[in-house]
Amino acid sequence: MPIPGAVVVGQSGGPTAVINQTLVGVVQACRARPDIFTKVLGAVHGIKGIMDGKFHDFAAESDAQLELVAGTPSAALRSVRHKAAPEDGKRIFARFQELGVRHFFYIGGNDTAETTHLINEYARQAGYDLNCFHCPKTIDNDLRVTDHCPGYGSAAKFVAQAFMGDNLDLAALAGIKINIVMGRNAGWLTAASALARQFPDDGPHLIYCPEADFTLEAFCRDAEAVYRRLGRCLIAASEGIHGPGGSDIVDLGEVDSHGNKQLSGSGALGDVLANALKKHLAKVMPEKKHRVRADTFGYLQRCFPGVVSEVDAREARQAGSAAVAAVLAGERSGSIAFRRPSGDYRVETFVTPLQTVAKETKPMPRDFLTSAGNDVASARLLPYLRPLVGALPPVGRLALG
Amino acid sequence: MPIPGAVVVGQSGGPTAVINQTLVGVVQACRARPDIFTKVLGAVHGIKGIMDGKFHDFAAESDAQLELVAGTPSAALRSVRHKAAPEDGKRIFARFQELGVRHFFYIGGNDTAETTHLINEYARQAGYDLNCFHCPKTIDNDLRVTDHCPGYGSAAKFVAQAFMGDNLDLAALAGIKINIVMGRNAGWLTAASALARQFPDDGPHLIYCPEADFTLEAFCRDAEAVYRRLGRCLIAASEGIHGPGGSDIVDLGEVDSHGNKQLSGSGALGDVLANALKKHLAKVMPEKKHRVRADTFGYLQRCFPGVVSEVDAREARQAGSAAVAAVLAGERSGSIAFRRPSGDYRVETFVTPLQTVAKETKPMPRDFLTSAGNDVASARLLPYLRPLVGALPPVGRLALG
Repeated sequence: MPIPGAVVVGQSGGPTAVINQTLVGVVQACRARPDIFTKVLGAVHGIKGIMDGKFHDFAAESDAQLELVAGTPSAALRSVRHKAAPEDGKRIFARFQELGVRHFFYIGGNDTAETTHLINEYARQAGYDLNCFHCPKTIDNDLRVTDHCPGYGSAAKFVAQAFMGDNLDLAALAGIKINIVMGRNAGWLTAASALARQFPDDGPHLIYCPEADFTLEAFCRDAEAVYRRLGRCLIAASEGIHGPGGSDIVDLGEVDSHGNKQLSGSGALGDVLANALKKHLAKVMPEKKHRVRADTFGYLQRCFPGVVSEVDAREARQAGSAAVAAVLAGERSGSIAFRRPSGDYRVETFVTPLQTVAKETKPMPRDFLTSAGNDVASARLLPYLRPLVGALPPVGRLALG
Repeated sequence: MPIPGAVVVGQSGGPTAVINQTLVGVVQACRARPDIFTKVLGAVHGIKGIMDGKFHDFAAESDAQLELVAGTPSAALRSVRHKAAPEDGKRIFARFQELGVRHFFYIGGNDTAETTHLINEYARQAGYDLNCFHCPKTIDNDLRVTDHCPGYGSAAKFVAQAFMGDNLDLAALAGIKINIVMGRNAGWLTAASALARQFPDDGPHLIYCPEADFTLEAFCRDAEAVYRRLGRCLIAASEGIHGPGGSDIVDLGEVDSHGNKQLSGSGALGDVLANALKKHLAKVMPEKKHRVRADTFGYLQRCFPGVVSEVDAREARQAGSAAVAAVLAGERSGSIAFRRPSGDYRVETFVTPLQTVAKETKPMPRDFLTSAGNDVASARLLPYLRPLVGALPPVGRLALG
């Protein structure tokens, strides 16, 4: 039997459309066992809220209100990007001691797993008895160990629908369209654009992920070839694409507290690609004017209300309740992961040590891309991806011939 | 009784999420009266398809397939941006004569109404007996005469949901976020961001439309004030904002065949606003780092599948069937418009002369904005707007205090 005590749950890192499902999964599973979980406190702005003594007592929340919050995108407890330092650990345990906290659940990505791991280590060193769990979330789908990450399916659905719409738009007015998709190190979200393809000539016609090196020369050549063949070309490019050896395509300079470069919230990469392509086409096809446009999907991808994968929402809830179940089963720490037994789509959760998820991320396997590196390998990617996203809006076309 | 003959229907200008509803409205209403409408032909790429002899015979399409197409965003017949010149008129009537066309329906915005008007004039001059109707569509909602335009409600819904998500995202991680919304001359779509507000501190906190002059100085001052008060600031800015006297904020240079400047498909304006604000905050609040991001919604707004206003879809269908009904009622030419009798929301259609819609657009009334020009006047705007967009996804929050 786990030691009874108060619970602190927090959210950290970039929000997703279903991160509150995980929060409510933790809260409701804890509320079901008041003998063990004597109180459920939400840390406002993650560990910053713990240190500042800012908590939300979930006792005040009705089940109906929690369901409404679960279906609302972004982090209801608010988020933070802060890596715990040893002196933070001291402040955190002082606060935990004061409140009688024996269970800590932290929902986030690899940086959050790292902080959860550090807090777990600091607790051991301090001899403070604490169950310490990380619940996964990230639209990037780049956590190690787990088959996939809650948050990804919904963001992938947004990207797929956005490309479906843009593919139809471009078919109506022709030209070249480049869309920049989130994903600093992993191409998972960009690869999801492939779900937009329903007819043989549908875009995206080219897909560039960070798992393959990118050069402007090859990009211009690829796009020109599609454009000559179809009269249009729809392109998906990850914000994280880079040249050989990891060299930058655009250098934006800004870096966050985890050392991550700012890639989103700027249209710079899209404009660089569009301008390079305009210049190229003016040289090789000078006989006509070319319509080249770039959109950067930006933050719309991660918290769009109303475009949510049902599977993703369900599994995000499960990631929360599984962490509580692990505590009840006597586990002391870990990160919740998913695995997918073969056969029809279903998932199981399991607990993996925190340090197996912390810090580093996992790229998409290289063989999910074609060897040329300018498209996905559909036979590999789509069976993995489709169940996570679920049904997309039906689309019809006229047989224009 | 109108003169029996073949029908040509086409789509022109930027596509919308519901423009195929209007197409199917025309086609189905014509198919119901084969005695008058002997054949229904779709012009592929609008009048370009007529001149090139590229038609789609709707006889081949089942009702079920037409319904699927009606629910699919973008122009199923493909679109065009081409203003009819007198010599085009000659080619068009030669083709119409050959095919026995007596009814022409052209779906589009003000440029399309202008082309419909020109074709109608050329037909009269040539003594060619032709019923000539324009069916309205535009996400910009800027056509003259009509109360509102099919296509706007769905684009407004997308913008509202995007701002709902971004408001939640920004509340989780704080900072300043600027979103650039489509709308060259009219702020209607940008104004729709106001629908995202559900709680008193919800964003967008500032809304800039082209109907009020914009200066970077006032913008930086406004944003700083909100940011100091709430710790965050969400901003909606139209791509068409301009300085006093219509001066450019950013000069992108590219111009289309109607003399319209390219504003979308580039992140330039967002980056200019974000950089100006970063510089301003570094000066007036040098004590901390400021997170300032900009996203440009771009083409996602106009053809996003799965985010469609039901009212908009229904009225778009009605715009098509009303044009056919006008022909059956003995009208010779015109543009379909909507009016809204007072009381509960309902609409009626009527026919307005083509030249009352052609060419010029209509901005949003200035009193839909506050006198300071940095927000909408909610009491004016929202009763007009809400029925066009319909229900938005429910959102819940924790009472964090």
